[in-house]
Amino acid sequence: MTGPVTLADIRAAAERISDTAVRTPLVPFAPADPGRPLWIKPESLQPTAAFKLRGAYNKIKQLLPEARERGVVAHSSGNHARSVAWLAQRLRLRAVIVMPDTAPANKVDAVRALGAEVVLVPPSERDTHGFVLAEKYGYLPVPPFDDPAVVAGQGTVGLEIMEDLPDADVVLVPVSGGGLAAGVATAVKALRPTTLVIGVEPDLASDAAQSLREGRRVAWEPERTYRTVADGLRTTGLGVVPWEQIRRHLDEIVTVGEEQILDAVRRLALDARLVAEPSGAVTFAAYLAGETTGKHVAILSGGSVNPELLARVLTRPDLQEAPHDR
Amino acid sequence: MTGPVTLADIRAAAERISDTAVRTPLVPFAPADPGRPLWIKPESLQPTAAFKLRGAYNKIKQLLPEARERGVVAHSSGNHARSVAWLAQRLRLRAVIVMPDTAPANKVDAVRALGAEVVLVPPSERDTHGFVLAEKYGYLPVPPFDDPAVVAGQGTVGLEIMEDLPDADVVLVPVSGGGLAAGVATAVKALRPTTLVIGVEPDLASDAAQSLREGRRVAWEPERTYRTVADGLRTTGLGVVPWEQIRRHLDEIVTVGEEQILDAVRRLALDARLVAEPSGAVTFAAYLAGETTGKHVAILSGGSVNPELLARVLTRPDLQEAPHDR
Repeated sequence: MTGPVTLADIRAAAERISDTAVRTPLVPFAPADPGRPLWIKPESLQPTAAFKLRGAYNKIKQLLPEARERGVVAHSSGNHARSVAWLAQRLRLRAVIVMPDTAPANKVDAVRALGAEVVLVPPSERDTHGFVLAEKYGYLPVPPFDDPAVVAGQGTVGLEIMEDLPDADVVLVPVSGGGLAAGVATAVKALRPTTLVIGVEPDLASDAAQSLREGRRVAWEPERTYRTVADGLRTTGLGVVPWEQIRRHLDEIVTVGEEQILDAVRRLALDARLVAEPSGAVTFAAYLAGETTGKHVAILSGGSVNPELLARVLTRPDLQEAPHDR
Repeated sequence: MTGPVTLADIRAAAERISDTAVRTPLVPFAPADPGRPLWIKPESLQPTAAFKLRGAYNKIKQLLPEARERGVVAHSSGNHARSVAWLAQRLRLRAVIVMPDTAPANKVDAVRALGAEVVLVPPSERDTHGFVLAEKYGYLPVPPFDDPAVVAGQGTVGLEIMEDLPDADVVLVPVSGGGLAAGVATAVKALRPTTLVIGVEPDLASDAAQSLREGRRVAWEPERTYRTVADGLRTTGLGVVPWEQIRRHLDEIVTVGEEQILDAVRRLALDARLVAEPSGAVTFAAYLAGETTGKHVAILSGGSVNPELLARVLTRPDLQEAPHDR
């Protein structure tokens, strides 16, 4: 696949991944303001806890049967690594995962437990060492976002949203490397151009907001993005493939603060009974802070939360109930 | 409706409640043993946090338009109260909720916030005072479980399970007053008699297990059932209507301990990204402890968990990971 990702690519991906990815429901959020009803798309209910499974599987399935001979390689410290390892285990492929040597031991152990081989590298080599290994040993790379097949796979989230709620007015999607935002914006705009597709980033990792504002791909230093609690959104910049889709199809990117993100994690658990990681809660935070009207969908992108962090936000007296809880 | 609840009653209920109740998905539980795969039916995703909405709505809809004149009355300290209050607010009915004066202030406030009138009574009058008020003021009672329309409404959970997984081998359902267990067992057995339908109770509130064993409806003293952390399963005995269905259609009732219930709450949050209240987690606890084979479904009946309790189980070092997490 070359050139921009199309709705046809996304439809083909939906067919390809249907035997493994969960078709997540739209869950109505009961306490929502009647003037701006909200549905949550809980990608946290995927077997690997996040939407990443969709793009990784759409890519890997197209690499078969060659991947059976050569194995696959991926770089990630989070949900992409887990998805590739999980898929490789099911498909009986060799998987090599490149992770930064700063990754928490439990994340490294989780990937190893799925049978993948972990290669630890300094953080500065995380995004490149996989390609070095691919070159040297012939492994097939499964990129986390900068790949048309991966973008098309993530776009199936948008396709499902418009199938289930064809008159959605606003779709809120987290932005990091941009794979999910690019795929969702492409699908939604192709099916209903008047629906607003709004990206959401933490204030502390708002490189994509700056990129869209300036009309060019801007990268932030890792030291800068690593300040946010939303660890899944710390990527230093948009991928080339996602950027082409995002600048065409995404209406805007809004940002949310750290306290808003933590409050959103808490309220999703208590008011929607859904466990979200901070990165997965940014869209709900943006909904709570926003003033857009009509039917909203917030994509809850993942649920791999640190148990201590979740416990902490559940018992924080300083995170008050918002007025529309009443 | 008189006589036993039938599959036709449950199908009619499904049609009746489809404009309001969420058709919850079956969520595959990824870490399950391949020999006994598990799907979770998360009724916690209903707008009122529990399956209770189904039965209450099936009942109330059949009371319209008379209920518009007379109002409705219900007794409950938990999810049934919340469901009736929420439905009454949407349907613009007067609702009176009888609650024990021992109910936590936040639960009373939540019901009041939905516009219902709360009448506090001593715990011993909780189950009868609603009928006194109905007699005196003409309110129409919406019983929590001992009513054919309520049982038929809860049975839609079983209908959906068999539509989504027609070859399910084992369905695990919590038992308290018995409305859910009766409805689910009726639906499942009518559609596939070989599927095992297993009720689950806390050891500390296992009046229904004793009833099924002895072939007669046994009641336990409130002081006895109130020892379990599973506050939604503290009802003192099965209802008459549910009992008739349960003794015919439920294969067995198993029980789980308090530590198993808390561990299940923790693992549902971290491994399935679903917030469960202790009562909602008993089926998952039974699955983890069980030895049945084939395709399992565990009904997660509700998610109104106390935030402090959830925070506590998330950080308890003594609740160890089970071996098949690895």
